[in-house]
This record gives sequence, C-alpha cells and structure tokens, in this order.
Amino acid sequence: MFDKILVANRGEIALRIIRACKELGIKTVAVYSEADKETLHVKHADETYCLGPPSSNKSYLNIPSIISVADMAGVDAIHPGYGFLSENAYFAEVCETCGIKFIGPSAESMEQMGDKSIARETMIEAGVPVVPGTEGGLSGLEEAVETADEIGYPVIVKAAFGGGGRGMRTAQNEDDLKQAIQTASSEAEAAFGNAEVYLEKYIEEPRHIEFQIIADEHGNVVHLGERDCSIQRRHQKVIEEAPSPALDVDLREEMGQAAVKAAEAVNYANAGTVEFLLDKHNNYYFIEMNTRIQVEHPVTELVTGIDLIKEQIRIASGKELGYTQEDIEINGAAIECRINAEDPDKDFRPSPGQLEEYIIPGGFGVRIDSCAYPGYLIPPHYDSMVAKLITHGNDREEARRRMLRALDEFEISGIKTTIPFHKLVLNNAFFQQGEFYTNFIQRRIIGELE
Amino acid sequence: MFDKILVANRGEIALRIIRACKELGIKTVAVYSEADKETLHVKHADETYCLGPPSSNKSYLNIPSIISVADMAGVDAIHPGYGFLSENAYFAEVCETCGIKFIGPSAESMEQMGDKSIARETMIEAGVPVVPGTEGGLSGLEEAVETADEIGYPVIVKAAFGGGGRGMRTAQNEDDLKQAIQTASSEAEAAFGNAEVYLEKYIEEPRHIEFQIIADEHGNVVHLGERDCSIQRRHQKVIEEAPSPALDVDLREEMGQAAVKAAEAVNYANAGTVEFLLDKHNNYYFIEMNTRIQVEHPVTELVTGIDLIKEQIRIASGKELGYTQEDIEINGAAIECRINAEDPDKDFRPSPGQLEEYIIPGGFGVRIDSCAYPGYLIPPHYDSMVAKLITHGNDREEARRRMLRALDEFEISGIKTTIPFHKLVLNNAFFQQGEFYTNFIQRRIIGELE
Repeated sequence: MFDKILVANRGEIALRIIRACKELGIKTVAVYSEADKETLHVKHADETYCLGPPSSNKSYLNIPSIISVADMAGVDAIHPGYGFLSENAYFAEVCETCGIKFIGPSAESMEQMGDKSIARETMIEAGVPVVPGTEGGLSGLEEAVETADEIGYPVIVKAAFGGGGRGMRTAQNEDDLKQAIQTASSEAEAAFGNAEVYLEKYIEEPRHIEFQIIADEHGNVVHLGERDCSIQRRHQKVIEEAPSPALDVDLREEMGQAAVKAAEAVNYANAGTVEFLLDKHNNYYFIEMNTRIQVEHPVTELVTGIDLIKEQIRIASGKELGYTQEDIEINGAAIECRINAEDPDKDFRPSPGQLEEYIIPGGFGVRIDSCAYPGYLIPPHYDSMVAKLITHGNDREEARRRMLRALDEFEISGIKTTIPFHKLVLNNAFFQQGEFYTNFIQRRIIGELE
Repeated sequence: MFDKILVANRGEIALRIIRACKELGIKTVAVYSEADKETLHVKHADETYCLGPPSSNKSYLNIPSIISVADMAGVDAIHPGYGFLSENAYFAEVCETCGIKFIGPSAESMEQMGDKSIARETMIEAGVPVVPGTEGGLSGLEEAVETADEIGYPVIVKAAFGGGGRGMRTAQNEDDLKQAIQTASSEAEAAFGNAEVYLEKYIEEPRHIEFQIIADEHGNVVHLGERDCSIQRRHQKVIEEAPSPALDVDLREEMGQAAVKAAEAVNYANAGTVEFLLDKHNNYYFIEMNTRIQVEHPVTELVTGIDLIKEQIRIASGKELGYTQEDIEINGAAIECRINAEDPDKDFRPSPGQLEEYIIPGGFGVRIDSCAYPGYLIPPHYDSMVAKLITHGNDREEARRRMLRALDEFEISGIKTTIPFHKLVLNNAFFQQGEFYTNFIQRRIIGELE
C-alpha cells in the first residue's frame, strides 16, 4: 500500500480523498492556490504546498509545479479527483515517467475514451449500442433518406464540425428531412465554414443513466449499478440518484453488462463511469465514458456500502477487487443535491462570497461532503459548489423526504444558494413519481420560477 | 397515522424525533424551558411552547404543563425521548386518560420492569438468566456458605437496603466469606441502620451487552442485535458500538432470544433495551430493561438500516412490525462517541458555555446528532452532551479509523470537550482489539491521563 499520496485537486473532492487516505493510514499532501489557503482540504492534509495564484493554469492545472511538489514531498501516488487534470492522459504519462502512480486508468484507456469517434467505433466493435446514425458526413439526400428509414424517425441532422446547437435540425419524416438538411447545411456553412452534416437518431426525452464501473489491474471488472442524472440544467447535473426509478432488475443487468463490456474494450482499470441515454422504450445508447471519479459518486457509495475512493487507491496499489458481480447488492435509495453558490432567481448567476451562518443538517441517513464552514470565503475562481448533500433511505420516497427535511435544516447566509431550487424540484409531483427526463428542469421547473 | 406529535424532551433527542416526524409527514410540537429558546429542536418544530424556567421540575418534568400544551395544540401522541418522563409510568397513564397516545410501552410493562425485584422474579420465571444469588436477605453464615458453594466463588455480599458501594464485600473463598459477611453487615448497620445482607455471584470484568428490542402491539417481537456499552466512566456510558466484538453468531442468537423472552414476559410493545452482563466464559445475566429509546440507538440504526424512532411511531399508531427475526441483517459495524462539554483534564467537570468555533466532520459513514451550532450556548442545567458522533464502516476497524479521522476534524472552541479523551480510547491497543470490560477506562485510560 502507498505511504503518501498527493491530492491534485481542491475543495470537497480533495477533502474526500484526504479522508479516505486518513482512514487507510496513508499520509497526504495537499496542493492549493492562493485563493484556497483557508479551505478544509488544506487544513486536514499532513503536508501542504502553495502552487501559486488562483488561476487554474497557474495552480491546479500546472503540471510541472505539481510534479515538483510530488517529487519534493516524496509521494508514491497522485489522486487527481475530478475536473482539472483528472482526464489528462499526458499528465498520467508524466506521472508514470516520474515513477509516481497515477490513481486512475492508464493513459491509453483515457485516450481511447477521450476521442469521441474512436470511442464510438470501439463501442460498436464491442457490441455496445451507440446512437444510430451515419458514421461520417452525409453524401447526399439519398443516403439521408435511406439511413432515416433504417433507424426510424425522428432524426437529427448535425453539423459535422459544429457545436453549440447551431447547424442542428430535427426531422419527423422524409419531407422534414429534406428541409432539415438544407437548413442545417447552410447554417453550418455560415457558422463553421463547412457545410458537412451527419444524421443521428433523435432521442426524445431521454434519461441520463450512467453505470459506475470498478476494475482492478488484473482484469476483474464489475459494475456497481446505475445513477440517474437526468435532472440537469443546461447539461449540468443538478440532482443525482441511485438506483434509477426507470430501471428494473433485468434492464439493470443488461445495461450493467454493456457497461462492463465498454470498460473491458479499453482494458479499463480503476473507477470509471459509462454514460448512456435511455429512451422511453428502454433502448439505451452509449454516450461516453468518464475515466475518473465523479461528483455524484456518493449516491453509489450509500446504496452499495463500497467506498469508491478507497477502492481507487487499493486498485492503484495493485490489489485485486476481491469481490464479483454477484457480491454487489443495492440497498435502498440515495439522492444527491449539489448545493451551489448561485442565485436561482437571477438565472443561476454565481454568488461567491463569505458564509455568515452555516448550519448543516444531520441525523440518520444524511451525508455532507463539503469544504465550507462558518466564515469560509467561497472564491470566485472555481466552480460554485458549496456542499454535496446526500440522503439515503430504505426506498426512494424515504430518501426524498429525508432530503426535503435536510434542505429545510440547511442554513446558509451571506451568499445565495440553490437550496430553494432543490426544494422546488424535490416537491414536484413528477419528480416524486420518478417521471423525469433530461428536459425536466426546463419543462417542469423553470416555468414555476418565472 | 398520527397528524401531530408533541415531543416532551429537549436537545438532540428532541431534534431526532422531530426529524423522523418531518420525514413521516407528521406535524410536531416542541416544548422548551427558558434555557432552551435558541436550540435547534425548537427552531425546527412546527409549533413551540415555553414550559417555564430552566429547572426540570418546572419544565421537562412538569406533567400538568405538558399535558396542557398537548391539549391546547391538539396532538394525537407524545414522544417522551429518553430521561425526563420517558420511564414514568404515571405520565404514561395520564396520557392514556387524556386520550393521547404515549409513544412507548404500556404503563404496566414499565412498572413491571421498573421495580428491580419484580423484574428479577419475572425473568427467573421466564427462564432468562439473572445474576445467581440468594433471593432475599441471608439467614446466616450457613446459608451463605451453601449458596456460595452452589453458585461458585467469587461472590459479593451486598447490603439489602444499601447502595453506593457501601456495605459491599467480595469473597474468593469460604474464609473470605465469613469475614465479608461480618464487615458488610456492620457497615450496612452503620450506614443504613439495617444489617441485612444478601449474596450474589461476583461477575469479574464483565461486558455490558444490551439487546435492542422492537415489538408491536399485536404480539410480534424481534431483536435488532446487540450494543456493547462496556466503555463506561463511573457507570456512565461513554462509547457504544454494534455489534459487540465479543459475540459470535451463536451467542448473539441465544442472548437475542433471551432478550425477546424478557420482553414477551411483560407483554412489551414499542422499542426497548434488555441489558445483560456478560462474563469471560460467555455466561450472561439480565440486569434490567430500559423501557424507552436509548441515547446509543443510532449504532443499531446504522448496522440494521432500521429507523428506530419511525418504528416507535409506527408501532404506537397500531401498525404491525411487518418483518420477522429472519429479515434482520447486521451490516458492518458502528461506533458512537458521546461528545460532552466536560473537561477530561479536570475530572470531567462540566464545561457549559458558548460555542465559538463549531465545525463538524462529514463524509462517508459519518453521522452527527446534535442540537448545537456555532454560537450556541450550552446551558448548565441539563446533561452535558454537545453531540453524538457516530461512524459506520464495513467492519469494526473501518468504523474505528473513521471515528478517529472524524474526531480529528471536529473543531469546537469556547468550551472544553471530551474529544481528546475519545481519541485516547480509540487509539488504545486493547480497545482496538475489542478487548475491554466495564473497568476499561479505569484500568487502561485513567492512568494515561494522570
């Protein structure tokens, strides 16, 4: 086992990793920017090093500085957390070159999953469903009509070199399609200087379902069930839960096996997440794999009892999983609310600043992961998360009610937070019934706010 | 189910009950003394009523005032918590007379268990082992020698009308015994005006093992496993854990069945605890039954997943248990540390006062039950508990290490607390190995403090 680990991150995830290390008897090294001197991840580490100014490029993304600290402190391994350098294959390689274990998958696995088109091809080869469509740019209307007939309407035409919603049109039938290709092509030409478009099945009101994978370096791979992360605002996850109210045992088994296949196809080791879209007919489509620990990992921890950060560390140290798929049980249900320093009444504008009151909820089934405390100054330089509030119950309804009472107890003053917004969602009848898709916030909540 | 419940208690247990009610959709009424205006149990209740001055007799023990509030607020039921009126059979009767459900056992069960000698007789009849000894006062030396030969040495001679350690002598053999009876008798005569003594088997270095019982009003009784509460200071529990490191599956099954028998013998309904002494040869002896929820109930909740307060409320509303003994599983291990406002360096002198810093630990497997917050004034009128810190792990060692890291994170300033003392215990090698008895603190820790 490692003697000393450097945590190349900040905030709650850095503290989360330090906590796991302490419980494993591993010494910890924190790095921090000048904006993070007073945060708890720095306070609770055994050694601390300031990397430089707040700018991420000069601190948490500064590979030479981080490697220097690792070298100076004599660490065995680096845990990258999420964000920052966590999916940077080059950083993983540098660590390896320097004889420091990168706690995550190999640089090769990261690269294979990092390139969307390679990942798609790999999944097709492995027999994991992807969103059906043309493999590359459309040759013309004829190919479009043929493909659409094959995969079924509705379809979406997308600019091959575009993004941000421009050069994108949906079509419900062949007439629509002709029009869609014309419009999308000319928009693409105007916006990106290239008229090439491709065609994909349009998934209406999908759910975002992701499977937690855990794999050792000896070829053992299991999944720890799914998380439903459909509650999103502008593609940002807001509330996550496990298990998904949409999956039954059979579908879980099937999608879980697909996720395991996806991981095996890239010789994946360590913790990772395979993300799918799920349509209303229980068809699921691989979107991408996140080759790191995720913000929402605690909901999986609460329903499986497995400490994912400790597993990451154990696996990176060469240990075998020691359990098989049959040993994994899902107990009850868990929900996570991301409490952000944002003003829901002002289009979720960031609201950094100093916490005055900060009284956190407690009691049975309530977990808080946070670096904040009374008087803590939330810096404006990074993401706006103040705390992750996670509840666990014997079933989804108990977890939901527990979350509502915990949100009621949570007292934060000095800044605006998303707590009132979470209450709106948790109290919504469609949410309560588990009836939601990725458009839930736009469709069911934003109206109430306006 | 009830619409509205009055919580006839204060502090963390009052908040604990209010949390359960909120999650069940039941309205809550808090009562409080003038010293408790600013506490969280008052803040989070739906309705609040001041009972009067801080003195318990004028507030939390004032039955007429509490019943008046219950009547005025129109509650269906009263939850008494622990301490105060929780084991007062008269109060339970008054509630019944007023048509208010007392959330606890019947007054009859409480009375039967409240009288030590009736409880002992009832247990003997039910076949539950009690500490062997003479049933009443000794007739003379002959009876003493006979009894001691029968039950085996060592024995203890105790004043029949005494207490507080006076008129009490142990004997290792017959010679000792003659001397012990003489000394104990004359001490008893001098101290209590009555020379009568009785004889009991002396349990050397016992463990305090208690079983959580849950019984509905339809005759269904199960136990939820044991708690080991051997870590005591002057007969006050300091650290509790579940399961006990001393019990194997067979002994748990056997003692659990004895506990169920004990409950059945008094037609017990609701939550209760059957306490035993366990000697080194795995002999166990009933001591008493606590006919209420206990301070240390969270360790049982964490290993069974069962919310004991919700169960109490469900049962009191007439619901059936809905599960059997076979459905109960013990998952992992949990430890509770009572964080008290006491100064361990000054013989645990109470240290009430205002909290300055109050930063509580969090993360996976950490639960806090507390009414405190930054700036909260711990009143000098009641017990000195600031918070219950409870950790859960996949095994005892994980729960122990998690507790140590949580104790390290806990920041309280403005008052003295028992946090450093808990660290001493948790780090002790005998504690780590689960090798402890009720004399542990005196034998293994106090020496280190002096």
